Amino acid sequence: MSYRAPIREIRNALEASADLWSLKDRFPDLDEGLLEAILESAGALAADTLAPINRLGDRAGLHLNDGAVATPNGFKEAYAAFRDGGWQGLAADPAYGGQGLPRAVALACMEMVHAANMSFGLCPMLTAGAVEAIDHHGAPEQKQLYLGKLVSGVWTGTMNLTEPQAGSDVGALTTRATPRADGSYAITGQKIFITWGEHDLAPNIIHLVLARIEGAPAGSKGISLFIVPKFHDGARNGARCIGLEEKMGIHASPTCTMAYEGATGWLLGEENKGLAAMFTMMNAARLNVGLQGVAVAEAAYQKALSYAKERRQGGGLIIEHADVRRMLLTMKAKIQAGRALCYATAVAADRGDAAREDLLTPIAKAWCTDLGVEVASLGVQVHGGMGYIEEGGAAQYYRDARIAPIYEGTNGIQAIDLYGRKLLRDRGEAMTVQIAECRAAADAAGDANVRARLLDAASTLEAATAFMLSAPREDALAGASAYLSLAGDVIGAALLARGAARSGDRELAALLRFFADSVLPHASARAAEARAGAACLRDAALGDFAG
Amino acid sequence: MSYRAPIREIRNALEASADLWSLKDRFPDLDEGLLEAILESAGALAADTLAPINRLGDRAGLHLNDGAVATPNGFKEAYAAFRDGGWQGLAADPAYGGQGLPRAVALACMEMVHAANMSFGLCPMLTAGAVEAIDHHGAPEQKQLYLGKLVSGVWTGTMNLTEPQAGSDVGALTTRATPRADGSYAITGQKIFITWGEHDLAPNIIHLVLARIEGAPAGSKGISLFIVPKFHDGARNGARCIGLEEKMGIHASPTCTMAYEGATGWLLGEENKGLAAMFTMMNAARLNVGLQGVAVAEAAYQKALSYAKERRQGGGLIIEHADVRRMLLTMKAKIQAGRALCYATAVAADRGDAAREDLLTPIAKAWCTDLGVEVASLGVQVHGGMGYIEEGGAAQYYRDARIAPIYEGTNGIQAIDLYGRKLLRDRGEAMTVQIAECRAAADAAGDANVRARLLDAASTLEAATAFMLSAPREDALAGASAYLSLAGDVIGAALLARGAARSGDRELAALLRFFADSVLPHASARAAEARAGAACLRDAALGDFAG
Repeated sequence: MSYRAPIREIRNALEASADLWSLKDRFPDLDEGLLEAILESAGALAADTLAPINRLGDRAGLHLNDGAVATPNGFKEAYAAFRDGGWQGLAADPAYGGQGLPRAVALACMEMVHAANMSFGLCPMLTAGAVEAIDHHGAPEQKQLYLGKLVSGVWTGTMNLTEPQAGSDVGALTTRATPRADGSYAITGQKIFITWGEHDLAPNIIHLVLARIEGAPAGSKGISLFIVPKFHDGARNGARCIGLEEKMGIHASPTCTMAYEGATGWLLGEENKGLAAMFTMMNAARLNVGLQGVAVAEAAYQKALSYAKERRQGGGLIIEHADVRRMLLTMKAKIQAGRALCYATAVAADRGDAAREDLLTPIAKAWCTDLGVEVASLGVQVHGGMGYIEEGGAAQYYRDARIAPIYEGTNGIQAIDLYGRKLLRDRGEAMTVQIAECRAAADAAGDANVRARLLDAASTLEAATAFMLSAPREDALAGASAYLSLAGDVIGAALLARGAARSGDRELAALLRFFADSVLPHASARAAEARAGAACLRDAALGDFAG
Repeated sequence: MSYRAPIREIRNALEASADLWSLKDRFPDLDEGLLEAILESAGALAADTLAPINRLGDRAGLHLNDGAVATPNGFKEAYAAFRDGGWQGLAADPAYGGQGLPRAVALACMEMVHAANMSFGLCPMLTAGAVEAIDHHGAPEQKQLYLGKLVSGVWTGTMNLTEPQAGSDVGALTTRATPRADGSYAITGQKIFITWGEHDLAPNIIHLVLARIEGAPAGSKGISLFIVPKFHDGARNGARCIGLEEKMGIHASPTCTMAYEGATGWLLGEENKGLAAMFTMMNAARLNVGLQGVAVAEAAYQKALSYAKERRQGGGLIIEHADVRRMLLTMKAKIQAGRALCYATAVAADRGDAAREDLLTPIAKAWCTDLGVEVASLGVQVHGGMGYIEEGGAAQYYRDARIAPIYEGTNGIQAIDLYGRKLLRDRGEAMTVQIAECRAAADAAGDANVRARLLDAASTLEAATAFMLSAPREDALAGASAYLSLAGDVIGAALLARGAARSGDRELAALLRFFADSVLPHASARAAEARAGAACLRDAALGDFAG
């Protein structure tokens, strides 16, 4: 079996868990019929066009030839279908050709794209980030020049942040921007890890590049963002792919080293305010990466389920073994919780509820990408020996899934963000709302055991939040990852509970019971980890950790 | 930095945690000086000869050419060094050229071999299994014919169990053995997943093959074990490699499809008792596979530690970040617990304490291979983007580590074994001894928090054991994996505590505190998972799980 679009599960997460219809006043044209039609149509694209080239892309990989990157067979046609279907512009402004739908709906469609072909999905994901950045920070003529082409998917976009010597430390970047008389800049420097930085799917690529204008302040306060198109006015710009990384997975997604040699660029937004503009892009991308975790997990789950229902052993099917069922159920329950978490974050964005969106974004990114790795690993395990053989297909998900906890800010950075920028900023106010909603979901749960587990978990999260807010900074940072995991477990469970209660779906109720019995018991242990503090990090493993 | 032999950690686990010197009466020639010399020498082989070809082997992979498998550059020379150093025979009977040392010491040496080059290590591991099987079940002339060559490493051995249609269901195998007049058998059939089934490291390969003698009973009671050499009396036997699997990792270890076409074989042990003989081999191999989990984790840890101490970001080294230290400490603490668990299992075998060895073997196999995957994944994460690039080397450990929870019986099978064959057989007696030792270790712990955590965990394990013994079989099977994880956490912690108390090692004490604060809090949750029972597996996810 290949990929099948999980429309029922997606609708359940969107509507029952994430409260999509609370957006009705903002999106009056959207109704159930239209939603179903969009999801079915995206599901068909994913299943019929993108999934069949996923394994081919993994095997073929990419090759750089004189600055050009040829995508694997079938990718051009698939991209044309994606572009012509108008999928890029689902949530974009109708002023630029978008369809003005909720981001949550676009996210649901992208889930299917990523699940069917994670390498492919990265291309429109980056384009969406460029649209977001230009839409928020561009001058009117820049919007006019670029947004139409990007929203339609005729051109694609990239994000150029990392440099060889700087890693996640954006303030250390050295790419230079030299003003020219005509108002443009000459951009010179090297960028690494540029996703879809060069390819043959589109006639133009719009690079958004962080650089330092000559004379700008040192560190992160002297960084500006530039638009550097591959072609402008029909002429080839000095932006070239000079290397491709050989990666463990997402083999069909080109990860480029880009050389800018006096390339012509235009300032996007204000001078020295490039980081803020880049964060606009990254925040949207972070949620999308969290979603990738859910998506690759869903694909791994489907493959494992299908194998378990076909593979005979000892006279029966392996799905009849308790341990195989346990693994499959773990996969499905976590996927559904993660899906609901991503969609709830998008609905918050659609509703303009920035506090909620900001709080949930790092949790969605880190918790869902961790689950992507865990679920893909379980998928390999369900397959037994066949899981380790590349031909089986489960291995690819395990390799592909591993990037998501790393890019768009490692999960450790998400934990720091959750603590330092989100919790501290509002003294836990947005989290307190989540805890209250978790209690409300508990009260609405039909099952007494689920209710008790949820209430207990909500109190655990409440106490851990109080700890994080009052602890010395160093202790809080040492516990931030465990705290984030705890928050994901509890909020995910609450969303599952809400989904089960509202929909009356029996399968969802069963997933919730399983989640309550197998994930929530770990909440107090996560809280203990969060509290363990920095002392043990300071004095431990002195021999190894000492300079 | 390449691999460095962790002699101090290994000695600590062997001597302080696993009580190596309790074997003094059985191995009077072994003393601290000899132990140190052996470990140093094995460490040098691993670091200087095996580690340098690990990445090369991963990249080069293997190719089948007209039945022949050429190993990657450097493997022949490395194997010659391993063979000539006498490493294969460390724990083997001196009557056949072995050195008669404790298995625990041989295991410690193999840890370094696996860590430096997991693909390579599989070859001697399989040979050791063949030695074990022939030593236990062979006729005197068979021992005479094969053991000397295998113990010296001049020839290598394999284990042929799986068939394309049978998977782990050994009873379903169809390879036939037809008696010949001269007492030999003609073996015909196909075997898959045969590790090091064909290669160019040795002039002969001794295949141990499960097959069914014509007329034997159906199912697992009609299976016999045969010795099928690649060459006998100088003539090529009808045992051929007809395919190599393309795997996610361990690329330098040939995983062969073997065709036996009227190959000449000799019965090893009794007719129809082949499974028992194979289990001799598998039990030793299971402990070795658990050790591989520890070994690959150690290699991943060393690489991550070295990266974290070199990589600058934001003006400092990334090891200064709390979250990076947390990851490294998690890695190191779990590795040391897993190492102690493997060595303690081997010491039990050396002491002839079969009840303890049998109980600990599935725990060591499953718990340590799970930690191998977890730690290798953390190793990737510490590297950030570089972790996902093959050049960085962390990715290889993540790919290599993933096989260990699968082969030699999946970890799900280990959990069933722990419950069905170990716990039920002695009604929890051997586990009760472990629990008592855990309490003793708690009492000896200097730190009050560690003591409390350990006592609590011991009680949790005790209650969970009582549950497993009294629960309906179906419920117990549904909880078996969680129960195994719980047992590994608690026994691993107790061994760490014993090691810290006996050695007075400050670093070990810090690892123990961290383990107690971050792993042991999950014990009660594992117990809750174990108790969740079969009901949730029955009624959950009906839609998906239904036929």
